[in-house]
This record gives sequence, structure tokens and C-alpha cells, in this order.
Amino acid sequence: MVTIALDAMGGDLCPAPEVEGAVQAAQARFARVILVGREPEVRQHLTRFPGWEAAGVSIQHAEEAITMEDSAARAVKTKKNSSIRVAARLVKDGTAQGLVSAGNTGAVMATAKIVLGMVPGVERPALASAFPTIVEGKPVVVLDVGANVDCSPEMLAQFAVMGSIYSRVIFHNENPRVGLLSIGEEEHKGNELTHAATPLLKQLRLNFVGNVEGRDLYSGDVDVIVCDGFVGNVALKVSEGLADVIKKMLAASLQATMIRKVGYVLSKSAFTEFRRRMDYSEYGGAPLLGVKGVCVICHGRSTPKAIKNAIRVAAEFAAGNVNQHIEHDLV
Amino acid sequence: MVTIALDAMGGDLCPAPEVEGAVQAAQARFARVILVGREPEVRQHLTRFPGWEAAGVSIQHAEEAITMEDSAARAVKTKKNSSIRVAARLVKDGTAQGLVSAGNTGAVMATAKIVLGMVPGVERPALASAFPTIVEGKPVVVLDVGANVDCSPEMLAQFAVMGSIYSRVIFHNENPRVGLLSIGEEEHKGNELTHAATPLLKQLRLNFVGNVEGRDLYSGDVDVIVCDGFVGNVALKVSEGLADVIKKMLAASLQATMIRKVGYVLSKSAFTEFRRRMDYSEYGGAPLLGVKGVCVICHGRSTPKAIKNAIRVAAEFAAGNVNQHIEHDLV
Repeated sequence: MVTIALDAMGGDLCPAPEVEGAVQAAQARFARVILVGREPEVRQHLTRFPGWEAAGVSIQHAEEAITMEDSAARAVKTKKNSSIRVAARLVKDGTAQGLVSAGNTGAVMATAKIVLGMVPGVERPALASAFPTIVEGKPVVVLDVGANVDCSPEMLAQFAVMGSIYSRVIFHNENPRVGLLSIGEEEHKGNELTHAATPLLKQLRLNFVGNVEGRDLYSGDVDVIVCDGFVGNVALKVSEGLADVIKKMLAASLQATMIRKVGYVLSKSAFTEFRRRMDYSEYGGAPLLGVKGVCVICHGRSTPKAIKNAIRVAAEFAAGNVNQHIEHDLV
Repeated sequence: MVTIALDAMGGDLCPAPEVEGAVQAAQARFARVILVGREPEVRQHLTRFPGWEAAGVSIQHAEEAITMEDSAARAVKTKKNSSIRVAARLVKDGTAQGLVSAGNTGAVMATAKIVLGMVPGVERPALASAFPTIVEGKPVVVLDVGANVDCSPEMLAQFAVMGSIYSRVIFHNENPRVGLLSIGEEEHKGNELTHAATPLLKQLRLNFVGNVEGRDLYSGDVDVIVCDGFVGNVALKVSEGLADVIKKMLAASLQATMIRKVGYVLSKSAFTEFRRRMDYSEYGGAPLLGVKGVCVICHGRSTPKAIKNAIRVAAEFAAGNVNQHIEHDLV
């Protein structure tokens, strides 16, 4: 079983969701988990979960913590013993095979780059997110969703290679269909970046299907979608926002009259199923592809379930040797 | 009452939805409608609606039609008597006060620019779309959603002025809150374009609230969101795609067991209400702002209801003197 280093001081509500998620992941035998953070605080939260040590959870003390308000660049320079940094070192020295953090995304990325280094052939790391589609069990991998706001055509080509390997190793798509996110399916539709990226993508030994549109994030027609980190981040947050609004609108509509309420009670299991399929925490965070070592970044408001699933994803990445595949395909 | 010229040969299923939408709009007293297209074909479809002439619908023959497959640039050059072109001329010569088309977006934009010309002070026209938000009756205006794939900071500033007037005149927001679409609320978060646009937006006499995120398309926290046309188009299509998928997933879940089906029947009115709120056709197309004259562009797959609402929007734009406001605020 692999060992995952979990930044216990990352999320908005840390360390409670981290501690609970770590225990759940260890109990589910996803991985052994090292909780990295202020030991007294972490240990106190662990008292709620008797048997945590036997399950495979341990603690590594780290004095400092980087907050969401910290400037990523400055925090990485000044806080040499932050929980993120200590966790990354555990991966670097081989104690752990992967790192999970719900902390400041910029700081996690910078730390991973500095401590772990980059896979040869990769210019910049990319944050990859799995989106649920209409085809159950067939998520689409979208990258970049926020690591690089201004991208070169070459970077998009590297994202395509990395996303393709992600889809192959983790979602078992033998020959993943890769699309370029644009504003129309025809090749001439797009902006300067997509026009310049298209010939590069065609040259790769990949199943490149050309332009796809925003709606293809959910159509299940492609397995990987590449875009710059600005567009990808907007797409991700538009989706989260819309899904939230739809849930709230429906809940309000369903409470409006007594008859509707009765109907709601009877059909409640349908909504539970629906919520589960729309629930991003099922996918457990976004892997940072292109750094030497496994690094999974979670939402700052991650629940214990999201943390648990992120640990699962990190363990799968480590077991699947995703980085070796990337290096092999790029060099 | 104003008169609207409707391109009868634009949409994917033309002229059936156009003819029906025109009659509905005229009967609702939104406007008098001139159906522009091949007269015999249009007249034949009108036979389904006795009393169309009395309601205020008329026909203007146009020999040619631009299809979705036509290259916009070439079609505009070669098809001088296309239905789009003839409709635009009716606006230019004052016979109609606005133009509606569900046709090839590129061709409609190019035709509007050539025939109607630009409002002084506007570099490029922008396509503005109204999105439903969690706050009922408070849509947010997003622009550009596809007219300009690569934008300058100056263009974003002009979009802010135009969107603000749209929100004021059509949605009656006295002092619309304008946000810049980015990947975080903090000013330093964004790409080269947003960083360069921020100081320009701050200088305008507008209620500029700074960066907003993808989720703010639905939060109701702002009234206008500006972005380049590539990002805006992706956001629009991601939303349409997700809303479709959610409807399908829910429908499938609700049919899965007998108990759920009973629940669904009892709560059906809630879903009808929900669908109505999520229904983009309620908003009736996207006005092309910045051209001299009212021009509303609809989805190629517009239903009669969407056409009817687009005619309403065009009539409101004409009555609200939106273009004069834009010219006043920009020059």
C-alpha cells in the first residue's frame, strides 16, 4: 500500500475535515496517511477517531501554515516549514508517494514545483479536473483549470499528452478522445491560441478529434478537453455555480406547496442519486500534472469525503506511475 | 408600436419557427413584424395562422438565404439579396426599427456592421446575453458571448459601458454593478487581458465592482459581467450543456421506480416552474450592441417562443433608445 502525505493545515476549516478524511481513507485501505501539521492540534482532532493509528494514520509535525490570504510567492519563500512544504519533502525523500492539499492553490503549485521539480519535457504544470458527464462512469478530464492563465500553443499540446495519460491510467480509456475547447466545431472557429495550437495537436500521436464546445464538457463525446487555465477555471466555476443554483431553485420549488412536498418525499431517492452524480467531491480534487511526484489539490472547502477521495486519487496516480508515462510520452 | 424586420430564412428549421414566432409576437402586441424571405414559402407557412395580416404581420420578399454552412465573409460579399441583408436595409431606411435573425451569427454581425454601421466610439460590436440568476427576475447581462474572440482591454471597457446601459434600460437597474470575469476576486488574480482592463474599467463612470468569478454568472451579485467573446461563449455553452444534462439525469432518476414516478407526478408543477426559470428562450436572443440600429441574434435552434421573445427584446431596445444612450456615454 502506498503512503500519502496530507497537508492537515490547508483547507478553510482545517484540520477537522482533513483529519476525518484521512481516517476514512486509511480505513478504506486506499493508502497509509501522514497528517502533516501542528501536532498538538492534529492529535486532539484524532481523539474523535479511536483506532486511527492501527488504521494506518500517522502525524508529521510542521510548525507553520500557509493561509488562503498569504501571497503564494512570498509564503513559499518565507515559510520554509509550512505544512505544504514539509509534506512535499516527504514525497521528495520517498517517505510518501503522493501529496494532497486543500490549501492555497498558488502556494501548493509553487511548492510542488520547487521541492519536487518538473518532469522533463513539461514547460508548466497543469491542474486537471474530472467533470461528470451524461454518460455515467465516463468523466471527462479538463485541463488546465487554473494553474496557467496565459498559455502558449506548446503548453496546450503538452496538456493534451498529460490529460490523455490521466484518462488512460485512471479512467481506463484505451485511446482517449482529446478535444480542444473552442467556440465552434469547425477548425476556423476559435481564437489566436486555438488556431496556433491545432497543428501542434494534430502532430501528436493522440486521438485528437479537433475543436469541441462548452457543452461537450457534459456530452461524454470526448475524454479529454484542453484549454488555457483562465478559460478552464471559468468553465469549472460556472458549472459549480449553476449546479448550486439549480439545487437551490429546485428545493425552493419543491417546498412551495403541500402536494409538491409529498411528491418530493416520495421521489427523494432520485434527488439523492442526482446529487451524488453532480457532486464534485466524488472526484476528489485536481491532480497537478507535470511535477515530479504526485500532487492532488482540493477545494478549500473540501468535506471529509472530498479529502478521502483525493487520497484515493493520489494513491491511484502513484500506483499507475502516471509521471513515468508522461515523461516517456514527452521526451 | 414599433416594426421589427425578422429574417425568416435564418434558423435551422426555417421558416416554420420564425413564422409562428412572428404571429405570436404580433398578436401579443410586442411589435408589427415584417417577415423577410422567400415570399411563396413564407406565405404558405402563414396559412396556418388565419388573421396574421390583421395582427400586424407582413412579408418582404428576399431571393437569397445565407445558410449555417456558408462562410460568413464570403456570403456577405456575394449574397447581396439575402434575407439578412434585406432585413438590415429595412432598418437602415427606417421602415423597421429593429432586426431579428436566428441565422449564421457571423453573417448577421458582418451584415449589421456593413449595412447599419457602428455607433461612434465603439470599436467592435458585442453580443450580450442575459443569464438567469438565483434571484428571480434579476438576470445578469454577460458580454461578449461570441462576437470577438480576441479582445483588447479597450474593447472590454466599451463592453462595460454598453452592458451597463442594457441593464439600465431593459432590466431597470438604476446603477448596475459591473464585474470583470476572472479567476478570483482579488485584483491580482487574472490574465494579461484582465490586468490591463482593470485600470480602464476603474476610470469609467460606472459602478465597477472589480473581478468576479464564473459562479457569479448565477449568484445575482452583479448585473453586468464583461469578458472576451471566447470566454463568454464557453461560459454560455457550458451552462446550456450542464442545464440539459441535469434535466436528463433528473428525468431518468425520477422514472427509475414506481414510487419515484408517483412523487414526480405530485411535484410536477415544481419542475415546470424550474424549467421555465432555466429556459434560455425566455430571454429571447442576444442583442448585438454597438451597431447603429437594433439587432438581436437568436440561437439557430430557436423555438417559436424564443423568436417571439427576441422580437419583444428588439422592440424594447428600439423603444428604450439604447443606441443613443451608448453613443452619449461613449463620445
